[in-house]
Amino acid sequence: MAADNSRTVTVAELAAHVGGVVAGDGQRPISGCRSLNLAGPQDASFLSNIKYTQQLAVTNAGCVIVSHSLKPSDIDRGSLAPLTLIQTADPYFSFREIVVLLHGFRVHAPMSVSPLAAVAKSAKLGANCQIHPFACVGENAMVGDRCVVYPGAVIMARARLGDDCIVYPNAVIYDDCVLGNRCVLQSGAVIGSDGYGFATHHGIHHKIPQIGNVILEDDVEIGANSIIERAAMESTTIAKGTKLGNAVVIGHNCQIGEHNLLVSQVGIAGSTQTGHHVVFAGQVGVAGHLTIGNLVRAAAQAGIAADVPDGQDVGGTPAMEMKQAKRVYLQLYQLPEIARKLRELQREIAAMKTPPSTDA
Amino acid sequence: MAADNSRTVTVAELAAHVGGVVAGDGQRPISGCRSLNLAGPQDASFLSNIKYTQQLAVTNAGCVIVSHSLKPSDIDRGSLAPLTLIQTADPYFSFREIVVLLHGFRVHAPMSVSPLAAVAKSAKLGANCQIHPFACVGENAMVGDRCVVYPGAVIMARARLGDDCIVYPNAVIYDDCVLGNRCVLQSGAVIGSDGYGFATHHGIHHKIPQIGNVILEDDVEIGANSIIERAAMESTTIAKGTKLGNAVVIGHNCQIGEHNLLVSQVGIAGSTQTGHHVVFAGQVGVAGHLTIGNLVRAAAQAGIAADVPDGQDVGGTPAMEMKQAKRVYLQLYQLPEIARKLRELQREIAAMKTPPSTDA
Amino acid sequence: MAADNSRTVTVAELAAHVGGVVAGDGQRPISGCRSLNLAGPQDASFLSNIKYTQQLAVTNAGCVIVSHSLKPSDIDRGSLAPLTLIQTADPYFSFREIVVLLHGFRVHAPMSVSPLAAVAKSAKLGANCQIHPFACVGENAMVGDRCVVYPGAVIMARARLGDDCIVYPNAVIYDDCVLGNRCVLQSGAVIGSDGYGFATHHGIHHKIPQIGNVILEDDVEIGANSIIERAAMESTTIAKGTKLGNAVVIGHNCQIGEHNLLVSQVGIAGSTQTGHHVVFAGQVGVAGHLTIGNLVRAAAQAGIAADVPDGQDVGGTPAMEMKQAKRVYLQLYQLPEIARKLRELQREIAAMKTPPSTDA
Repeated sequence: MAADNSRTVTVAELAAHVGGVVAGDGQRPISGCRSLNLAGPQDASFLSNIKYTQQLAVTNAGCVIVSHSLKPSDIDRGSLAPLTLIQTADPYFSFREIVVLLHGFRVHAPMSVSPLAAVAKSAKLGANCQIHPFACVGENAMVGDRCVVYPGAVIMARARLGDDCIVYPNAVIYDDCVLGNRCVLQSGAVIGSDGYGFATHHGIHHKIPQIGNVILEDDVEIGANSIIERAAMESTTIAKGTKLGNAVVIGHNCQIGEHNLLVSQVGIAGSTQTGHHVVFAGQVGVAGHLTIGNLVRAAAQAGIAADVPDGQDVGGTPAMEMKQAKRVYLQLYQLPEIARKLRELQREIAAMKTPPSTDA
Repeated sequence: MAADNSRTVTVAELAAHVGGVVAGDGQRPISGCRSLNLAGPQDASFLSNIKYTQQLAVTNAGCVIVSHSLKPSDIDRGSLAPLTLIQTADPYFSFREIVVLLHGFRVHAPMSVSPLAAVAKSAKLGANCQIHPFACVGENAMVGDRCVVYPGAVIMARARLGDDCIVYPNAVIYDDCVLGNRCVLQSGAVIGSDGYGFATHHGIHHKIPQIGNVILEDDVEIGANSIIERAAMESTTIAKGTKLGNAVVIGHNCQIGEHNLLVSQVGIAGSTQTGHHVVFAGQVGVAGHLTIGNLVRAAAQAGIAADVPDGQDVGGTPAMEMKQAKRVYLQLYQLPEIARKLRELQREIAAMKTPPSTDA
Repeated sequence: MAADNSRTVTVAELAAHVGGVVAGDGQRPISGCRSLNLAGPQDASFLSNIKYTQQLAVTNAGCVIVSHSLKPSDIDRGSLAPLTLIQTADPYFSFREIVVLLHGFRVHAPMSVSPLAAVAKSAKLGANCQIHPFACVGENAMVGDRCVVYPGAVIMARARLGDDCIVYPNAVIYDDCVLGNRCVLQSGAVIGSDGYGFATHHGIHHKIPQIGNVILEDDVEIGANSIIERAAMESTTIAKGTKLGNAVVIGHNCQIGEHNLLVSQVGIAGSTQTGHHVVFAGQVGVAGHLTIGNLVRAAAQAGIAADVPDGQDVGGTPAMEMKQAKRVYLQLYQLPEIARKLRELQREIAAMKTPPSTDA
């Protein structure tokens, strides 16, 4: 919808494109991707969640991308025509490759530098940039090749963007911040606003100049209305390949590792560092000055108040190792019953300690 | 203040307007609405919260809207003049009707299409639209009659708005998204930014084109800086009459039902659906791929990790049925005491099992 | 980086500036501030967190600001040259004074009223205002002296700003809102969007005109993408000296006291009031219509559901007195073990009550 190549290929061609195996009719023409329940004979589809497995029995999809372990004979279609499958080793990624092939990414409207944009004379723009109306590029800012800067986006003085960045409407990059190549800022993202730094003296909170900046390495994506505070000194860094959801807040001086996934509404207080491939689910909160190891995962709403070693899954508030968290929260539900049993035992023991009545 | 019709009516006229009954002086002139503690003789007021009941004894309000069950004789005013009441069946709604009558909604400054706005030639604007300076309407976008698009608001390509929508400053509607009639987007709201969809392959998170859109049905209001992600495929939908607070995040592919109230900072992960008249209090988090029934209510900060049947109230993390949650959190407070008693019982039982000392 | 006075002073001059005592070489030239691990011989530094104490042993900083209680002899530098210290009574504040001296605050690019800004004819601008391109100042708005209004910022009709305010890109001030002197709005902050007020009648949520406004007193700073709802009637107020982090939401009619620190992602529901010097850590949620006393502090993610008296520290959900919260959450971790011991005791008591088998 947002982008459509209107390309039609056969199931066999799709399978070849993703290194998969066709089980069924390889000659069907496929022209788009849709969800299982809405797909028609010309659509490729995908089982996105195990909850929807029963939809395989009734979908009208032209083909469905599945793992090698799923066979057509596993699916009872009743009187419906058998499903055509494309079996691959990593079906989710294969489906992604097919969406890219058939639909592609958003096609940005052809645009050069709009006469309605405000680009400082000292700013440097790379080749083939698209600077939309009411976008601003400040003094001595540098924008790489093929960047798209949508309406209302503001790139403040001395900020530097690599090549192929996309800055969606009304996103803001403060002065001196640095973006690598292929970074994406969704609407309203704020990169490099002042860190929350105040020195309280005689009851007054005195603002500390935040003289650092923010560095986003290559292939970082920042969701809508997320905020990365600039460092008090030095740089707040989001390392390459890391993707943030919406309304995420990263405090000043944080060092976020490579290939992290920080889901919507996560908040990380200042000076915390994370390893590579960390995954924080929605609304996770992390205290400041912590060290989160590589490959750590935190369940939604977890509250992390201490360092977490490499590879550990955590959950709960305060966050604990995931298996323990599951045990704890299972018992939490039983807590009134635990209290009741405890009172019962107290009564029984009191009764046992009471000497039998002599007039019995 | 923001809007004022400067209209003056009598208490009796107000009562007639809302189908209520006057207890007291129906001839008093009333020209505005104020809170109980600040209202004067020409102001209508309302008991917004039971906590403020004692203010009835001392308020100077010209009249107070109350339910039929409250009588003037219930209120001890001491030496003050008795209160004039307007008794109605639904006093909160009646008060709302009176605020609308006496103050009305925000009066938008008269404005047609500003020469400082950027409206694409292929865009279609309805009758009597107000397009403010630095607002953008993209290629082939359609805006219905009497819409107000404030400064810095961006309507991207092919987006469609119904009639009487209000888009406050710097709100953004991404390409291909659809708004019904009378939708309101407060400042900084983002409709249709890319869903958080990445396929991880060999440790790299590959972006999946988000080829769907967002549909807001009629009478939807979205609070400031809230975000509705566009669907991976198909549409993320907010059904008619639903109102979102601020900084709310709705994940891609969600189907939010009719007349929901989703309070500030609520987050709902992808592909979850809610029934009608669902109410989520502040900071509630909901996992993805869940089904939330009709009329479900969740207490503030609840973490919903499983389907919820129709009509159920839930609270806590992980969310449980509300009565159970209250029992659990009551006992939670007692947990150290429970642990202490348990240790005491262990000691007592150990003592009972120990044979009495023979040298006693 | 964002601002640099390029000033060089001696350690002795710095010490005099902050009323401190030099322990070491007072003649060293110092030209900037850096973190302990990156500072060089011309940099002043500071121990920001006790976790980094060992860095004192190896830092190359030209001088380090410490408290009077830390002596050079406390630091084992091995074969490295001894550290030069500046000892003060409030080292964090002293360091702040030094950052201000050596780097200063952001220098705003010289700019008067841009011809690309939209300033209503009826608006009044004070002396030496900087109004950037694509900023809007609405009808009858008033902006004090020396205010800086960055690109895309919108000041709606009849809003009033005091002197020396800074409104960063794309921040929005709704109609009739009032800012004192020296207020700072980071990017995307929204002041005075409509309060979440709906009267539900026969299943329909009817919007209540929000006829109040927002008042920010002097020296208030609002973080990026934070939202202050306008009052239903009267004013939502943030009293002087209070600082909000990012993505904070303050509901309509709240009365936030003086010198509060409300950290990122805090949410406060409508009509709650706080005393002076309240501190809420990240993601704290507060219910509506509550009274929070002076000097109250709440730990991260706390859920405050009841009034809190002056001076109390609280934590947990629902929030409880901090010492109790620590006890509770310590035991929470032990909950599975508590349940196990309880089952064991039940078995033991059952065994004690069972008469010994007669055929033993």
